[in-house]
Amino acid sequence: MGKDFYGDLRLGILGGGQLGRMLIQDAINYNVSIHVLDPDQNAPCKRLCNHFEVGSLSDFDTVYNFGKGLDMITIEIEKVNVDALEKLEDEGVLVYPQSRVIRLIQDKGLQKQFFKQNDIPTAPFQFVSANEGLQQIDWSFPYIQKLRKDGYDGKGVKKINSAADHKTAFSEPSIIEKMVDFEKEIGIIVARNDHGDVSTFPMVEMEFNPQANLVEFLISPSTYSEEIQAEAEEIAKKIANDLQIVGLLAVEMFLTKTGEILVNELAPRPHNSGHQTIEGNVTSQFNQHLRAIFNLPLGNTDNLQHAVMINVLGEDGYEGLAKYEGVEDILAIEGVYVHLYGKKITKPFRKMGHVCIVNEDRETAIANARKVQSILKVIA
Amino acid sequence: MGKDFYGDLRLGILGGGQLGRMLIQDAINYNVSIHVLDPDQNAPCKRLCNHFEVGSLSDFDTVYNFGKGLDMITIEIEKVNVDALEKLEDEGVLVYPQSRVIRLIQDKGLQKQFFKQNDIPTAPFQFVSANEGLQQIDWSFPYIQKLRKDGYDGKGVKKINSAADHKTAFSEPSIIEKMVDFEKEIGIIVARNDHGDVSTFPMVEMEFNPQANLVEFLISPSTYSEEIQAEAEEIAKKIANDLQIVGLLAVEMFLTKTGEILVNELAPRPHNSGHQTIEGNVTSQFNQHLRAIFNLPLGNTDNLQHAVMINVLGEDGYEGLAKYEGVEDILAIEGVYVHLYGKKITKPFRKMGHVCIVNEDRETAIANARKVQSILKVIA
Repeated sequence: MGKDFYGDLRLGILGGGQLGRMLIQDAINYNVSIHVLDPDQNAPCKRLCNHFEVGSLSDFDTVYNFGKGLDMITIEIEKVNVDALEKLEDEGVLVYPQSRVIRLIQDKGLQKQFFKQNDIPTAPFQFVSANEGLQQIDWSFPYIQKLRKDGYDGKGVKKINSAADHKTAFSEPSIIEKMVDFEKEIGIIVARNDHGDVSTFPMVEMEFNPQANLVEFLISPSTYSEEIQAEAEEIAKKIANDLQIVGLLAVEMFLTKTGEILVNELAPRPHNSGHQTIEGNVTSQFNQHLRAIFNLPLGNTDNLQHAVMINVLGEDGYEGLAKYEGVEDILAIEGVYVHLYGKKITKPFRKMGHVCIVNEDRETAIANARKVQSILKVIA
Repeated sequence: MGKDFYGDLRLGILGGGQLGRMLIQDAINYNVSIHVLDPDQNAPCKRLCNHFEVGSLSDFDTVYNFGKGLDMITIEIEKVNVDALEKLEDEGVLVYPQSRVIRLIQDKGLQKQFFKQNDIPTAPFQFVSANEGLQQIDWSFPYIQKLRKDGYDGKGVKKINSAADHKTAFSEPSIIEKMVDFEKEIGIIVARNDHGDVSTFPMVEMEFNPQANLVEFLISPSTYSEEIQAEAEEIAKKIANDLQIVGLLAVEMFLTKTGEILVNELAPRPHNSGHQTIEGNVTSQFNQHLRAIFNLPLGNTDNLQHAVMINVLGEDGYEGLAKYEGVEDILAIEGVYVHLYGKKITKPFRKMGHVCIVNEDRETAIANARKVQSILKVIA
């Protein structure tokens, strides 16, 4: 990067939520001037940046006008206007991840085609157009239907158990995927800078809250065999290299009961499955993303301790001004780090924060995380 | 603290420099609404808070008006109007550290008297009034003269080598102190919350830049004997308890060549000698200060690794818009964390940032810190 960025680089972030907020917490160390665009006038980043603009992330003019005076743009959410980013790139603004990468990842159909073309293991799939629908499919039940666009946090995904479910299935362009009989959801975050340096964080294990369909509990590092971990890392590196991405890429994978690894989804940005790196690893995912997009040497990703991350979700049945119960009690537990996201309003299962629990002993970290989970509540 | 502070507590910080900036980086995790007062309209905190006000920290009305709508006030610099803080305390604003603690510590004469009254070991001293001056002193040369007020970073301190130096000595109220033949400057940061919980960070060793008279190099943890470390910790805890301070207290001490510990100075706030705790310890000094003033359980202060902190000072001979040379090169060294303070203008020896270097091996950490020191330059 030609620009001497310590002090005069203007970095735009599309999205002003918690990922942007944690990215800013780290970017402060590099004197970067931060500009944020978000549709919510109370977005978590609002008070923490040089310039905050309220506007639609999917509107061409809004994104283009926001970006055109900036030196570099990054994202904290994929659902952004890619045409505007492409035009900005053409005009010399650095866009990391690149618009073509965001365009590909925005569409689960293109993602799956990319996996297929590049020999990246993934569950068998088929396109479903709006017109034909699921009636034409002769797969055995159950299988999964996913909207090609705009799904997130489990939204845009349906399980099709029988022909009766065809009526309630999505009618928008989607893919269907064979159900994976997985043993565990695993994740690897990989970073690549413009020099082509590639570095992975150690593999993590995720546990989902089936009701909220969110990562609720994450354990780092994984205790699966070195072979499995090495294979997952190789897959993540291969994807980063095949995409030639600049920035962070979260690779969500299934480990099947037969020991096979299948790539589920990609996110070209800091990710919920990497929050524990803030305290658990030498370099955090946010610092690594900055190093990658600034084309700096990538940081050491070693684990410092065992780390468990739990999402702090709005309690079911409560909506309104958020109140946090139990913060004092959980801070009395050793190795507990609280991250609240500055959201005024809680809703059932809304991500209001996360807690990272570190310990030299894995089982103690998990036990302490369970304690935190039982104590901390977000109500209204 | 009665207030449910996650979301609605308004915390004022007197001073918007790097200490406030790093405090904000951590306070973001607790949803605190931050208000900052600083005389410099380009202060490092300016863009990172809910409300930034330009104004004098020593003016009664300015400080009082800034503070009167807030729930809690803390400081990042001692030189503030204490009368205003006292009035705010009377009116129910929580001021941590308390105004009486700041008042005592602002005046090196009162500090020394406090040490004497509480049997805290310190170098012999004597008051020098403006009128009498040094001519009346019959001490053998050399000795040290310190202004009672407003000295910082080595300013306000003079070595009196002979009677000839009397002419250039300070004429303001000051103290004189016997020279301490010290082996090492050591430091302990202690925290105390309103429940009376007290916790110390492990002892650190400091190396000064004699030209700039600033901490330039700091090593944590110390390798002095457990007895010496335990003694230093006991002294720090005793001072925190004797003062009944709420918040962080940095205790700077001399370890003499005969193994005696003498307290040099106090700072009732996060301190340069604790920056390495951000990466080097389970809890950072900034997080600990927040825990203390919010009356939360204090965090574990254990070292994670050996950590060396170096101040990044403006290169001698350069003044103007700051440029940073060598950032890319130092980030290629393992375990290097860069913290720039967002100051536009560099001046000789101005604190522009710091770098923390961590390693499992102490000697490697020191060697890497020396490399960083030789590579990184702030010029104009």
